[in-house]
This record gives sequence, C-alpha cells and structure tokens, in this order.
Amino acid sequence: MREFSLPIRVYIEDTDAGGIVYYVNYLKFFERARTELVRSLGHGKRAVMDDGTQFVVSKAEIHYREPARLDDDLVAVASCSEVGGATIDFDQKVLRDETVLVEGSVRIALIDSVTGRPKRLTADLRAALMNDGD
Amino acid sequence: MREFSLPIRVYIEDTDAGGIVYYVNYLKFFERARTELVRSLGHGKRAVMDDGTQFVVSKAEIHYREPARLDDDLVAVASCSEVGGATIDFDQKVLRDETVLVEGSVRIALIDSVTGRPKRLTADLRAALMNDGD
Amino acid sequence: MREFSLPIRVYIEDTDAGGIVYYVNYLKFFERARTELVRSLGHGKRAVMDDGTQFVVSKAEIHYREPARLDDDLVAVASCSEVGGATIDFDQKVLRDETVLVEGSVRIALIDSVTGRPKRLTADLRAALMNDGD
Amino acid sequence: MREFSLPIRVYIEDTDAGGIVYYVNYLKFFERARTELVRSLGHGKRAVMDDGTQFVVSKAEIHYREPARLDDDLVAVASCSEVGGATIDFDQKVLRDETVLVEGSVRIALIDSVTGRPKRLTADLRAALMNDGD
Repeated sequence: MREFSLPIRVYIEDTDAGGIVYYVNYLKFFERARTELVRSLGHGKRAVMDDGTQFVVSKAEIHYREPARLDDDLVAVASCSEVGGATIDFDQKVLRDETVLVEGSVRIALIDSVTGRPKRLTADLRAALMNDGD
Repeated sequence: MREFSLPIRVYIEDTDAGGIVYYVNYLKFFERARTELVRSLGHGKRAVMDDGTQFVVSKAEIHYREPARLDDDLVAVASCSEVGGATIDFDQKVLRDETVLVEGSVRIALIDSVTGRPKRLTADLRAALMNDGD
Repeated sequence: MREFSLPIRVYIEDTDAGGIVYYVNYLKFFERARTELVRSLGHGKRAVMDDGTQFVVSKAEIHYREPARLDDDLVAVASCSEVGGATIDFDQKVLRDETVLVEGSVRIALIDSVTGRPKRLTADLRAALMNDGD
Repeated sequence: MREFSLPIRVYIEDTDAGGIVYYVNYLKFFERARTELVRSLGHGKRAVMDDGTQFVVSKAEIHYREPARLDDDLVAVASCSEVGGATIDFDQKVLRDETVLVEGSVRIALIDSVTGRPKRLTADLRAALMNDGD
C-alpha cells in the first residue's frame, strides 16, 4: 500500500500556551501528509475538486504519546491501510527522529460535490493507492 | 455527571475551501465546551496551570455526520463520561438545532507541569465532575 | 457611524508557546466583530455571498500594545470609519476591561464573486453603516 | 540586509469558504519566512527564548493584491529592512511565480521574557541581520 512521509518544521503558529504543539494541529500535519500522498499519485486536491469529487473526513482517531515543541523537525506519515468502495483508510503518525509522538487513523469518504452522495473511487486511484510505490 | 452546552457561531475563520467548517476545527469547539464545563466548576484553565497541573489530551475520537456552514449557530456539548485516577473522559457533540453534526470522545490526562508525570485529580474536582449540576 | 462590541473569551487554541494570545489571532477577533456588525444590519455573511458579493480584506494594519492571556475576557470592537464606493473602512480594537491591548484598521473591498471586479455598496448597506445605530 | 525565501504549499487548512487562502494566514506565512531567516543566522526561536529574549510583533501592515488558492506553490519572503536598538523591521511578500500576491511590513520588538522590558539586540545578531548573506 502507498505511504508518504513529509518533513514538518514546528512554527510558533503550531504551539499553545502549554509550550508544546497544540494537539489539534496534529490533524493538520496528518492531512498534509495525506494530501502529498494523493498528489504523488497525480491527484492534486484542486484537480480532484474540479472533477466534482470531494474527499471528506468521516472519522478520525488520534493517540498522543509525547509532545512536540517549537523548532522541532518532525515527520508526518500517511499510509494507506484499506481501500473500500467509496472510502480510503489511512494510518497516520508524527515522529521526531525514531520516536512516535502521535499516531492515529483517518477515514476519508469520497462524495459527489453536487449531490453530497458517496462516490466510488476510480479504478486508477484505487490501483495507485494499493501499489506500494516502487 | 456534569454536562455543559456552549453556543458557537461559525465564522469565516472556521471554514475551508470546501465551503464547510474545516473538520479539524470541531476539536476546538469540543475543547471550548470542555473548558467552560471545567470553568463552571471553579477551575479556570489558568488557575489549573498555576496550580502546577496540566490537562493534556491523551486521545480523541471523532465522527463526522453532517457539515456545518458559515453563519451557522451551533451548540458544542461536553459531558463527563468517566473519571479515573488521573484521567477524565468526555463525550462530545456539536449540534445544529436537534441534529448531531459531529460526535466523539476525548480523554484528558492530568499531569504535573514540572515532572510531566500523571497527577491524581483532587477530591474536589472529582466530586464536582461526578455531580450532575442540579 | 455604526459600531459593534463583541465579548471574546480566550481559549487555549488562541495562545502560543509565548504563553500569550498568538498575535495573528487578533485579526480573527477583529473579523468576528466586523461580521457581527454587518450581521446586525441584516447582512449575514452567507446572505451576502449568496447575493454574488464577496467582502475581501484589501489591507490591514495592526498595533500591539499589551498581550492577552489564557482565560481573559476580551472585547473586540469594530467601528465603521469610512464608506467608499466599493470599500468599507473599519477601526478595530481589542480591549481587556478599559485597556486597549491591540488596535488597527481594516479595509474591506466588495467584489463580484463571479468576475472578481469591484462592486458598489447598495444604498441600503451604505445607509445602515453610516447610521450610528440609535 | 539579510533576506530569506521560503517555499510554501497551500493546504486545505490554509483556505476559507471563499475558496481562497484565508487572509489572516498570510501573517503565518510571513512569520515562517522570518523564523527561517533568523534561524539561518544561528538563532532558532527556542534558542532565543532560552536566552531570556522574546521576539514580539509590535506592528504589522499588510496589503492584499491577489488571492492564492488550494495547491498553489507560493514563496514567502522576509527581508530585513531596518535594525533599531531593540527592534527589527522586515519587508515581507508572498509570491506565486513572479506575481506578488500579498506584501507588508512587520516590526519585531525584543523584550526580556521575565521583565517584559525592551532588550537591545546583541552585536552579533545585529551584524548578522545587516549582512546581505554573501
């Protein structure tokens, strides 16, 4: 299955008064990695939207192990874990060096931008997601 | 168990290019409701921090049912669902009128701000959380 | 000229690792007050968008006097200062009690959502903005 | 004077319901470029904070020319324009290809993290900022 790792630098905008990365923002880091994974398959977000398809998050689960801090160099990882008829599941992690700080899973549903109804993945996208990228 | 409902107006800052509330931001709405619940018990965030205790989110789960849009008047609900030795579990929802748009659960861990180690809830806070507020 | 004051509570989402409100977020507070001012005139954001008009910020200036902190109860103020053919100027402030923490000015341009070209204010909106609300 | 250019990819988190980059977020892009400029001089944000110095924004001015959109590849530029006793002025821009979308200026004040009083730049930092990097 396809996987993508994206380097992320922690800026002041990412932190909170606890002196650490605001926990909500890891979902943004997760999404940046998913976006780059999908883009690496030739499906930029805007292209997908222009095509009348919307990728919407239908559920997310996230576990916080250790905090990240200002100036940290992190890596956000998205790995496709399962491809359904109209959904894609991703396993996600944020690491600092070898340490997993945060991990979770995110389910994306494909919907028609006009009707809002579920929309099946194209065979192309499905094949690309299931290919491990060599 | 204690519950709190907080009205939330959707501003442009909350939305994304999909024309709906950016899904990550519901975690902020969840937190505002939790914060007000804890404040209603006499434990403002800053008071808690000054006391050497930090409330950190250790896990979160969130299910997206329907989107919210610009100008919507929402209600964010936090209900204490379980109180452990050094953790508090909340059930959370965001509604528009009677419709649940998003629901989830969040576990908060109490830690010592200096050592970072788990810290037991005070008897006061425990009693207050378990009281249903009547 | 029309003025609007909106109470704002500072949540952890608003802060940064400096322990204070992240300075960028005052622009969000400014906008919430402007939005409520315009809404109080019967022009909800969505209504305006549906009408084919977009309010876009064309310039902003902001001066930071003193920091706000977690749990602070602030007031964001928007006062209409000038109404041009296709622009509206606002003076803006964020106060804690009587102290001005941040002040600035924001110019809004009205544009046609389809063509992106400047669009004149309706006589109604102009009159409403110039009325001081008594 | 020192200048730094930072590539920035636009993610969904950066956009709003107008379908464009939320104008407030350009201040974050500005800051990322400033942060990297200062880091390139050997002054990481955290190092600076540990040293008892805080960089606070004392004023900002920003002009919006054209919108950026989802998936855009932008460049954020920070150029040091003036170095005062306890302040640093930056000219800032965000470009897409050769087009300036947004430009502005930001004044940073150095303050002592404990007393909150102005703090003079070290001779090292001053020299580094005024050097054009060749």
